Amino acid sequence: MEQVAFIGLGNMGFPMAGHLANRGYEVVVYNRTTCVAQRWVKEYGGTYKLTPAAAAAEADLVITCVGNDEDLHAVLQGGDGVFSAMRAGSVLVDHTTASAQKARELAEFAAIKGCGFLDAPVSGGQLGAEQGALTIMVGGEAGVFKQVESMLSCYAKTIRLMGPVGAGQLTKMVNQICVAGLLQSLAEGLHFAEQAGLDVEAVMQVVSQGAASSWQMQNRYQTMLDGKFDFGFAVKWMRKDLRYVLDEARKQGAQLPVTALVDQFYADVETMGGADWDTSSLIQRLRCR
Amino acid sequence: MEQVAFIGLGNMGFPMAGHLANRGYEVVVYNRTTCVAQRWVKEYGGTYKLTPAAAAAEADLVITCVGNDEDLHAVLQGGDGVFSAMRAGSVLVDHTTASAQKARELAEFAAIKGCGFLDAPVSGGQLGAEQGALTIMVGGEAGVFKQVESMLSCYAKTIRLMGPVGAGQLTKMVNQICVAGLLQSLAEGLHFAEQAGLDVEAVMQVVSQGAASSWQMQNRYQTMLDGKFDFGFAVKWMRKDLRYVLDEARKQGAQLPVTALVDQFYADVETMGGADWDTSSLIQRLRCR
Repeated sequence: MEQVAFIGLGNMGFPMAGHLANRGYEVVVYNRTTCVAQRWVKEYGGTYKLTPAAAAAEADLVITCVGNDEDLHAVLQGGDGVFSAMRAGSVLVDHTTASAQKARELAEFAAIKGCGFLDAPVSGGQLGAEQGALTIMVGGEAGVFKQVESMLSCYAKTIRLMGPVGAGQLTKMVNQICVAGLLQSLAEGLHFAEQAGLDVEAVMQVVSQGAASSWQMQNRYQTMLDGKFDFGFAVKWMRKDLRYVLDEARKQGAQLPVTALVDQFYADVETMGGADWDTSSLIQRLRCR
Repeated sequence: MEQVAFIGLGNMGFPMAGHLANRGYEVVVYNRTTCVAQRWVKEYGGTYKLTPAAAAAEADLVITCVGNDEDLHAVLQGGDGVFSAMRAGSVLVDHTTASAQKARELAEFAAIKGCGFLDAPVSGGQLGAEQGALTIMVGGEAGVFKQVESMLSCYAKTIRLMGPVGAGQLTKMVNQICVAGLLQSLAEGLHFAEQAGLDVEAVMQVVSQGAASSWQMQNRYQTMLDGKFDFGFAVKWMRKDLRYVLDEARKQGAQLPVTALVDQFYADVETMGGADWDTSSLIQRLRCR
């Protein structure tokens, strides 16, 4: 595989596509806002196209990294979408955090075109994308996975096949479930410490040594204390992910009471003007009452 | 300080008192169930007494490590309690996880007797107590803290003065707040993964590398998958701690919606017969619906 089409040059896709170009692959990009694609070509070489179909027409591997299910429909299944032009024998890898149902639907569309499909949501954030150190959770067939694994390693430190199509999305959902309640409990702990008049930094230094410790505690308590939320993973994206989580839980018959509650708390944060704040901003909701 | 009275030889107190004896202090013990005190003396030397007052009468340092506020009242403020016999100039250190209000009350009683007081709840569990590697969160005066710090180090790897009397208990409360919601979110993540038919061990290996990772995930996911809960920190003790947490939050004007909800979930676990199960048993409640 030599030519890659990369669809979606957001905070994540822009550096990811860059890693592919730097590794010597021929990269053709498409982005909804064309000036971003032009900026990418200026930085990394390669070419940009004005439609997803044009970008995908000659590609061996088509990669999508867009916002949600609806964006996927637009770039893949629309009139100038990837599926209208994709070559038989090529592979589609989707890095969007989307629904498992959408992944299964896209796999069916791809099969009709004689193409392979992998759902491959990532974790590690913008920093992980820039450093080429993402974790990729993949759903799909082992044969397809082996075809593209080395190319995905351009921007990942861990790539793992989790099961059939959809398993990548379901694994990412588990990640978001664990994060949501964890962040709320950290916010409640900090809020309690503040209200009780404790030296909150000293408290965090002590409790982070034992059974309460977490990546979020170690990496977010200071910014939460400082009220700094203009970075990281935005509330609006977390709400999108939790929508897929809660829909899927309903289908699977899984009870997620705290996850559902925290989703509602994020709705409060959005009402407070925090749609673009980091997910650790749950503490602002407690402070503002 | 040479002579120590140790009141309360439970899973924690038994090895903690043992570390003091092994370090050469003269230890006099009291336990509500006398045969445990006899067993302790057989193992570590020292002497046991039949009342808290008798144990404390000659002590420079009196240490309590009992179950809750009511137990503290019984061993300290009752007819044969420590305060009826404690010498002026001695110090009382309480390792019980109790209310901050009780800590302040005991400090006042101690002051009347001319004694120092520190509230000093611990974390690290039975294993930490056995290995002498506990974390101690202390509330009280710096002068009193300095008097006893080296003795407490017999069974602690971290000892930190957090503020005035009560600050030790309040810090421990922050720890329990952070743990409660975190464990529920981990339980929801595992439950979702099970219901979705994922390879749950593979999922945990992947998500524990990033923003969802926690001590609880790393140390409890396997036993949660195995349905093994006959170890660790019991639900009934967590509920006791959360009672103090929620009472204190009401006083401080702190909102703890998820902590309060998880406390109710632990009530379900108790109804299921799980009062003595490890706190990670929240997942059983989700599985049993």
